[in-house]
Parts: sequence; C-alpha cells; structure tokens
Amino acid sequence: MSGRILVIDDVETNRVILRTKLASQYYSVLLAESGYHGLDLATREEPDVILLDVVMPDIDGFEVCRRLKADPCLAHIPVVMITALNSPEERLRGLEVGADDFLSRPLCDLALFARVRNLMRSKLMFDELRLRDRTCGGSGPGTTLAEGDALIASGGSSVLFVSDPPEEAQDWATRMGRRLGIRTMSCDAGQTALNIVREAPPDAIVISQQVRDGVDGRQLLAALRSHPDTRQSAILFAVQGEDFALAAQVLDLGASDYFHTPPDPAELAARLRAQLRRKLISDGLRSTLRDGLRLAMVDPLTGLFNRRYALHHLERIVARARATGRGFATMMLDLDSFKSVNDRYGHPAGDAVLRQFADRLRETVRGEDLVARLGGEEFFVAMPDVDARIAAQVAERMRVAVESAPFVVDGVPEGLSVTVSIGVSVGHHPEPLEVAELINRADAALYASKHGGRNMVTVVANAA
Amino acid sequence: MSGRILVIDDVETNRVILRTKLASQYYSVLLAESGYHGLDLATREEPDVILLDVVMPDIDGFEVCRRLKADPCLAHIPVVMITALNSPEERLRGLEVGADDFLSRPLCDLALFARVRNLMRSKLMFDELRLRDRTCGGSGPGTTLAEGDALIASGGSSVLFVSDPPEEAQDWATRMGRRLGIRTMSCDAGQTALNIVREAPPDAIVISQQVRDGVDGRQLLAALRSHPDTRQSAILFAVQGEDFALAAQVLDLGASDYFHTPPDPAELAARLRAQLRRKLISDGLRSTLRDGLRLAMVDPLTGLFNRRYALHHLERIVARARATGRGFATMMLDLDSFKSVNDRYGHPAGDAVLRQFADRLRETVRGEDLVARLGGEEFFVAMPDVDARIAAQVAERMRVAVESAPFVVDGVPEGLSVTVSIGVSVGHHPEPLEVAELINRADAALYASKHGGRNMVTVVANAA
Ligand SMILES: [Mg+2]
Ligand SMILES: [Mg+2]
Repeated sequence: MSGRILVIDDVETNRVILRTKLASQYYSVLLAESGYHGLDLATREEPDVILLDVVMPDIDGFEVCRRLKADPCLAHIPVVMITALNSPEERLRGLEVGADDFLSRPLCDLALFARVRNLMRSKLMFDELRLRDRTCGGSGPGTTLAEGDALIASGGSSVLFVSDPPEEAQDWATRMGRRLGIRTMSCDAGQTALNIVREAPPDAIVISQQVRDGVDGRQLLAALRSHPDTRQSAILFAVQGEDFALAAQVLDLGASDYFHTPPDPAELAARLRAQLRRKLISDGLRSTLRDGLRLAMVDPLTGLFNRRYALHHLERIVARARATGRGFATMMLDLDSFKSVNDRYGHPAGDAVLRQFADRLRETVRGEDLVARLGGEEFFVAMPDVDARIAAQVAERMRVAVESAPFVVDGVPEGLSVTVSIGVSVGHHPEPLEVAELINRADAALYASKHGGRNMVTVVANAA
Repeated sequence: MSGRILVIDDVETNRVILRTKLASQYYSVLLAESGYHGLDLATREEPDVILLDVVMPDIDGFEVCRRLKADPCLAHIPVVMITALNSPEERLRGLEVGADDFLSRPLCDLALFARVRNLMRSKLMFDELRLRDRTCGGSGPGTTLAEGDALIASGGSSVLFVSDPPEEAQDWATRMGRRLGIRTMSCDAGQTALNIVREAPPDAIVISQQVRDGVDGRQLLAALRSHPDTRQSAILFAVQGEDFALAAQVLDLGASDYFHTPPDPAELAARLRAQLRRKLISDGLRSTLRDGLRLAMVDPLTGLFNRRYALHHLERIVARARATGRGFATMMLDLDSFKSVNDRYGHPAGDAVLRQFADRLRETVRGEDLVARLGGEEFFVAMPDVDARIAAQVAERMRVAVESAPFVVDGVPEGLSVTVSIGVSVGHHPEPLEVAELINRADAALYASKHGGRNMVTVVANAA
C-alpha cells in the first residue's frame, strides 16, 4: 500500500538516499531539512509516516518527536527515528518521547520497507476509525502521548506473555507487571495461549519465537491476528538475536512491534507502553463510534429502533422480499387516547406507558422482525416472510397483550388500562412495492381501526 | 497481514495444495469439500477471504457465490474463483454473481498471494467500518449484491479514465458510461488527473499502465492512493498483456482491481460495477458512523456540544493545562427566569430563545474554546490558555451580548428581553485540578451570580 512519508534530516545526502529508496517503492516523499521545517510540514501535510533523523542542529530528533506527540492533531502519525549510534540509551530516550521504532544507518532496505509497510497499514486502519476526511473533522483532534499514558495509568490493562521455557514468560510478566502496573498472565504453549485469549482477550500479547508443542511463534502470531477476539490486540514479537529477516516477516504478518532477546527490560517496558497506548486509544475511538451508531439507530426512551433506522431497514426488507418472492407485513400501531394519559398523569406516566408498551411489543415478535418507535405514541413493526393470516394473528396477539393487563404507573395503584389500534398491510412479489406505499397502506388500515372504534386490528392484503 | 481463508473445493488434492501454499504464508485455513459444506462453514466461521472452486458436483461455484452475495451477513467477504478454464464467458459469469477475481490452475504463487494480501487488507478496513466484534453487532447485517447494484442504479457515480493515447481513455469512458449509466471523465496525463480529482474526487479511477508526460501509471496509482481525496476511491489498473508480476505489484500498491488490455468491455464493466458497489457501501458505512458521531457529540436543538462531550473535552483541557502550565477558565451559564418564557410563550418560544442564546455565545468565543449545552437552560464554556482577567472580560461580553438586544420570538413583535447569570472559575498549574472540582467551583460562582441579583458575572480564581 502506498502512502505519504515525511523525511526529516539535516544532511542532504541522507534525504536523497531515503527519497530514492522510498520512491522505488512508489511512496510519495516529502523532505524537510531541519526539525522546525519538519514540524511545519507535518502540520500542513499530515503525512502517514515520519522518518526522523536524531542529530540535527536546530532542534534534535528527540525534541521534534516530543512536540509531534504532544500535538493532538499529529500525535497519531507513526515516527521512525534514524540514527548512526542506535545505543540502548538512545533507543530508550526515543521510545520515551513516543518514537515507534529505530533504524540504524546504513539503512537496510528489508528492515526499512517492512517497518514502513507495517506502520502504513496501522495508520490507515486508525484513519478509518477517526473518520477523518476532507469534508469533516471526524472524531476531532486525536490523543496526545501524555493522554495515552494517562489511559494506561488509569489501570486495567492486561498483557499475556507466551514463551518456552515458561520461566522466561514468567520473568517478563513479573518485570513488566511491576514496571507498568498492568495485569499480566504467562504461559508456554500456543494452545494454552489461544484458550486464555478466548476467555478474556488481553490488550497486548508478547510472543516468543520459541513456543511449546512444536508451534512456531509465527504460527501463534498469525492465529491470534486471524482470530476475531485478538485481531485488535497489540502483539509484540520476541526475535532471537539480530535476525532482521524474521523481524521483517513478523511485521508483515501483523505484529505491532518486535524486540530482540534477551530484552532490555526498560526498552521492553517502553515498547509495551507504546503499544498499550495505541490499543487503548483505538478502543476509545471504536467505543465512541459504537455509542454514536447506537444513538443513530435507537429511540432512547424505549430502546426500540428509531424512525430513521426503521425506514432504512424497511427498504432492505422490501428488496429481500423482491428477491425471495416471499410475503411480508408492515404494521402501524398507535396507542388509543394517549394524550389523555399525559394530560391526566403527567409526562413521566406517559413515558412509563410507552416503555411498557415497547416491552410487550418486543415479547410478541420474532427475532427477525423489526420493531420501531416512529415518534410520540406511534410504533411500527415489519415482519419478513409472513402471509396475511399469520400477520393478522400476530397483530391480534399484540392488541390482546396491551388490553389484557393494566400498565404500572407511579401514583396509580390500580394501574392504567391502555389499548392500541393496529393497521396491517401485507404484500408480496410480484406486486410493485414501494416503501412509501407500504406505509401509506398500513396507515390507512390504522385509520380504519381508529374509526372502527379503536382497540382493534385492520388487515389490508393485496388481491394476489 | 495474516487472516482466515476458507477453501471450497471438491477435489482433495486441490484442497491440500492450497492449504500448504496458504499455511506457508501463515494464513489460517478452513477447508470445505462441497458447495453446501462451504456455505455452512462460511456462515459459522465468517472467514476473511473465500477461495472457491468453479466445478463441483452438488452446487457449483457460481451458485455458491450467488448465495454468499445474497446473504447480508456474508456478502462482504471477498471471493476468488479458481478455475481450470478461465474463459471470458466463465469470468463474466463469475463477476456477475459477485466474484472478486479469478485464478487459473495451476495456481501461480505470485498472483495468488498478491490477490489474497490485497483482499485481506480491504476486508480488514471494511471490518473496522462495520465495527463488528464479539460484543456487539456493529452496524448490523451488511449489504447484499442486489442492494449494492441498486445503489449504483440510483445514479450519481462518477469514474475517471486516464490513459495515453487519450483516444483509449475516451473510448473506455464512452463504453462504460453507456453500459453502467455513470458519469465519466477522461484524460491522458497524470498531472491532469491529479487536478481533476482535486476538484471533485470520482468514485472510481481507471488507470492505464501508459500515462502521458513520462509518468508511469504506477506512480499515478501511488499518488492517488496517498492523496486524502482519493484514498478511498476505487482504482482499477490496466495491465498491458499478461504481465502477472506487474499485476501483483499494483495490487500491493493499493489498486482495488486490475484488468488486462485490450479489455473485454463486458468484463471491464462487470469489474467496474463490483468496485463501485464496494465504494458506495463503504461510503454509506462512513456516513452512518459520521452521523452517529455527530449525534453522540452534539445537542440537536442548539448545535452546540452536549454534556457528555463537554465533560470529555474538559478532561483534555485540564490535562493539557497540566502539561503546559498555562491557565484556563470554565464557565457555567444559566438563563435567568427561563421557566417563565416557556410558561408564558410556550415551548417553541423557549426553544427559539435557547437557539439564539447559543448563537450569541458562539460569536463571543474563540475557535479553540468549547461551548456546550449541558441541558435545559444551562450552558458551559471552557477556555484554554486564559487568565482571570481575560476570562472575566469574555464573560462580561457574553452577559452584555444577551442583555443588549431582545430575542426574536414568533408572536412577540417587540421581542423578549433575556438575561444570563454567569459563574467563572479560573485555575492553573500546579494547583491540583479535577474536572469535578472545576465544575463545582464554576457552579458556586454561578450560584453567587444568581443570588447577587442575576444578570451578572462572578469570577472565582485561585490564590496563586
Ligand atoms: Mg543529522
Ligand atoms: Mg472441482
């Protein structure tokens, strides 16, 4: 997958080499020759990945990274630091200001391209969750490094360590649990790991190259990435020694990050913290979107679907009925004399009646039926795959369910007697069916029920 | 990226060969030995990609594909048909029942893996948009093939064709416009294409290997994929002759599909239709999520942020103030004697006042300030990077903005005089700040304004 990469380096030769390498893979490349220039380009262009030199005269790479990660509009852009030294101290310092990885000069193409592919992929997925595009701000500014760390500090993160020998997994778990204040588990076999994650998927999983029962760590990585429960977990892979080909492979298989064994505990903790941060931020975005989706679909008072969703869903039921040739029914329901409930007993009593009516409706229909509140005391039901006889039976059952027992209302010990009028329209292929027409018909049937004396069901079926 | 692949084939040798190939790339593989078995496994396991044999004894691959694409829970899973013949008729028939591509036996690893990687990537992005996970149904059942085609038929899709010589692009555009009833544009140069998409990004772009001004079609593909405006467009790549290595490369660069030139117009139309379908369905999901996001964040009456978003945002302002050490202010605002407006002039008049108050508030604050309606006639403002003096000035400006001109209400020619009471709390680092405490303080200041006679501002600042 292609994308836009910003290279920040004070040495022209370095910039030219990187541009050539990246262009050979068809990436679009932006170049900045200083830290300040880089920050400015990042703000204006929002690249997908940033490759950042460490030693620069104006502000160094660490400070550039720190500023990027403190800016809510830029903090989500992955940063790879490029260094001549690549000392443990330097790596640790970079990880602490939010760098995603380090590459040493002279750059190895295999390592560079695998890392960029991996970061590009996770960036694109993240962009989808942020719903950012040119017409709309999406979910607004992102989460800074400090805010991400605050999420981890607020607790509850869990990490599973898998390695053979089990002592190694246990050792990592103990150290990381202490350093990061997270819940940890450990095991030595791939199958055990799969069982553990099925019970409760951890936020992150650390997998050693060596796993018991002859399972290669890569197989476990692939299995976890494929599994719906752990598809979104952070996965860190422990590569034995300096095997860069393996490192590149696990990044392509979907590892979020890797480290070389034996790990420097401080570095492993920093890498794990970075991945947990990313995981918690993504989870937050998903949950905001999910809440929003719910709000967009559901009537808050009754928990039934709302008008908007109901009409949309009805389009689909009609399309499916056209395809299958089977019949289906739509019903309009209206509580009788509901205004008088509100007027006599107040709005809270009215709301209680609407909620209980919704409950009774829900109990009368099948799983595949759609029940919605259109507004006020008006409700709607769509039932796929039924004929006029069954639809009439269901509607009658609804009518009786309302009439048969009083509704519970505060301050009215004997409860309220409520009745409902129902209009049913049944249609089937090959009759031309339009959503508007169906609703009009059910509405006309409801009108007939109201004028017929209320508390009754009227069914309109086509001649066919 | 790894994932789960379902192989449906009646010949055991074929299944074993595919399993071996796919396992070597660390994919998880499910095997089905008949069409019915495959449909059943697809339903139970929801794989990421399906590889489907054409000739099978019970129901053939075409029928399996047709059923998959008619099922709203399975229609989004990409299907690659595997065939010995690979005749134009067969390909066309497969595309028409919704197959994403064809591979010929004996299978070429390069073509197989590139296609699977490509489909896996788009499937995972699509899953993010559907918000499906084990705890929640996400956006509910997906869109069937027929429903997708109905979206295209409802019109408005646009496709850009880029090729050198320009006559080729024009020829394709004319034919496809006629066949699919879509709006088309054509040009011969990469730069022209980039200018066109900047004006109005098309739903799909067809790029020839050969593009004018010495630009390789791959460079244009990569540039379009990297560009925010066309990142989500469908892109089809025209590969000259039978160059499978190039085909694999363009799939990895992010092409949605490719075809060999000269194209069979019927096949190109079918491929284009498939990509438009996918694009429109994704757009629909994004727009539902965006609507939901809006509903989750915004008060529908005034268009201001709602309580929930305001509290969330305040947490961030507090965190940032802790990080920067700069001061910030929170304000609680309450319209004076608002109940009497509702009682005397009715709810519509009250709503009009609330809306106009929101407008006046909005005009008084800066872009970075947060303005929210907490509920009823209670509003909230958070201002980062201000001290007590500026906060007091802004609050006083708000108070005057409300008092200075009557509010426009239907049926009240002279308008309504409205006033507002405001409580301001100013805090800064290193004072320990908690969101709840800030709100309590602003609330106390508001209380002081109310008891001091209303239509006034009270500022509480910490001693520091
Ligand atoms: Mg330098
Ligand atoms: Mg066969």
